[in-house]
Amino acid sequence: MNDSFLRACRREPADRIPVWFMRQAGRCLPEYRAVRAEHEMFDVMHSAELTALVTQQPVKRFGVDAAVIFSDIVAPLQAAGVDVKLVAEVGPVFANPIRTSADVAALPRLADPSSSMAGLLGGIAQVAEADEVPVIGFCGGPFTLASYLVEGGPSRDYAKTKALMHGSPDVWDALMDVLADITTTSLLAQIDAGASAVQIFDSWVGALDPDTYRRYALPATASVLQAVASRGVPRIVFGVSTGELLTLFAEAGADVVGVDWRVPLDLARARLGPNVAVQGNLDPAICLAGWPAVEAGARRVLDAAGSAPGHVFNLGWGVLPSTDPEVLTQLVDWVHRQPPPTDAP
Amino acid sequence: MNDSFLRACRREPADRIPVWFMRQAGRCLPEYRAVRAEHEMFDVMHSAELTALVTQQPVKRFGVDAAVIFSDIVAPLQAAGVDVKLVAEVGPVFANPIRTSADVAALPRLADPSSSMAGLLGGIAQVAEADEVPVIGFCGGPFTLASYLVEGGPSRDYAKTKALMHGSPDVWDALMDVLADITTTSLLAQIDAGASAVQIFDSWVGALDPDTYRRYALPATASVLQAVASRGVPRIVFGVSTGELLTLFAEAGADVVGVDWRVPLDLARARLGPNVAVQGNLDPAICLAGWPAVEAGARRVLDAAGSAPGHVFNLGWGVLPSTDPEVLTQLVDWVHRQPPPTDAP
Repeated sequence: MNDSFLRACRREPADRIPVWFMRQAGRCLPEYRAVRAEHEMFDVMHSAELTALVTQQPVKRFGVDAAVIFSDIVAPLQAAGVDVKLVAEVGPVFANPIRTSADVAALPRLADPSSSMAGLLGGIAQVAEADEVPVIGFCGGPFTLASYLVEGGPSRDYAKTKALMHGSPDVWDALMDVLADITTTSLLAQIDAGASAVQIFDSWVGALDPDTYRRYALPATASVLQAVASRGVPRIVFGVSTGELLTLFAEAGADVVGVDWRVPLDLARARLGPNVAVQGNLDPAICLAGWPAVEAGARRVLDAAGSAPGHVFNLGWGVLPSTDPEVLTQLVDWVHRQPPPTDAP
Repeated sequence: MNDSFLRACRREPADRIPVWFMRQAGRCLPEYRAVRAEHEMFDVMHSAELTALVTQQPVKRFGVDAAVIFSDIVAPLQAAGVDVKLVAEVGPVFANPIRTSADVAALPRLADPSSSMAGLLGGIAQVAEADEVPVIGFCGGPFTLASYLVEGGPSRDYAKTKALMHGSPDVWDALMDVLADITTTSLLAQIDAGASAVQIFDSWVGALDPDTYRRYALPATASVLQAVASRGVPRIVFGVSTGELLTLFAEAGADVVGVDWRVPLDLARARLGPNVAVQGNLDPAICLAGWPAVEAGARRVLDAAGSAPGHVFNLGWGVLPSTDPEVLTQLVDWVHRQPPPTDAP
């Protein structure tokens, strides 16, 4: 198996700089759209065969060094029995927003993932058995999931979420406990099914200042990371607009910190120190600007990443749907042709 | 006139910590909603009397130390003749998005602000004549205005904007030249009408990484700041998610750097050094969480701001519409009762 991704996660030298893309499965791929023309999102997620198929499409097309499983960050909530719909152009919409301690107490747990997440876990097993590249399992971060549950869906300002957090910390803490539990169950099941690494997408946690993160989001995140530590797989944490939270991700237990495009990797590494790997961070919008701009941007990323091992090349956020797949193929090939870092970390 | 705001902008000791709130005029105030029940947004903006009335409402109610003029960041574009509508729950929507050099060449300039911006300028003059607190004039930042024009309205990912910027830098640079020109004309007219300070709301420029900001946004911003420098009024620059851009705002010429709630002010000051004042940065969502949370948050802001002069207390972004005005009144009073910084800067 191509182990360049896992080696970089462990800050070990590798024979090339590994690449994968957040949201590489789906979105911009015509072969994915062909699948989706016949199957709803949740139908794909509930089928091991379709999950494996869609997960492997970008590996085949782009030549990336890891296969992130095709799923959604709210999948464990749906599997637990929470009433959620994925609405096109909107995102996840929850029928019953969580605002009180009674709401939290009534939340279901993820009791039997082998049954309720059979599609996801079976998909992981199939891709892992192919033994070409490592499979990355994932889940939403506790704050991000909580924000969806409290707001009832996506939000611009997280006003209700933060009002609950700061105004009713007991309710908030109870909600985070439930979400840490669901998330842990999901990640352990994914690892046991064959995931060689896991990523917590705490996509929207960058809405918090560091003090607030430390008090209201770090404990649940650390609990999840700690609970999966014994499995020995690299644990990645990522969210957008998290420049001031990067060190807290490491403090929570991340082995690899995902960095959005706003923070140059030399700055990120200076903040994080040598004991954490970094992942990122080309602005996905640059991929719409033609190859010369893409190459120049990728060059800046590698220059900033420096010469120590422990860099996984990625975009700074998910692939944009209007991206030309050919550009991503060219980008992977270009990164693979660059000399890998060889310095001692 | 109460000069505590201007003294803090100039990093001089003052007898109290000055406070104002972004979006203090409008939004959460019932007396503003009463005005808007009878007048459309642009009707208020086109009337000097209504502009002055709405601008002074929060000064009277909250006791803030500065009066930010009631307007919209796209007002200069509308005054120049660009076809823009302010759509409730959406934002500014432009009939003719700008994508080509021909589009840019066809953009109008702000030829006669004394006529086309008579409401805004008359409103500034009326509030300035009252001589109670300084008037803050403002405009949108060049990047932010460009993003609205290119996308045709608000955007999540600025994909078209960034594709134009990175893919057609000549078109982008020409667009930024036009916007710097319009913005400069607007700010000079506002200062000449009586504004004692100006703020560039480059609200969405935090979507750029530092290298990209330096190449594609800083030059136009610096040009605007330089063009108004001779008037001698403090120049504030602000945008959300701009932790990695703060030093570039100062490099562009800002006298005061607005900091969103993500970056603690001690970190912001460490990055900026002693020759720039800072403004901010309580998370506006905390104002929805009850007074104890507000006081604790405000205390953290002041502790981080430290003991050197040069801090203007503000929220880290605009007042949320669901904020209870009484909380803001209480917050201003609380800040005013704290000992002001007295150390040499």
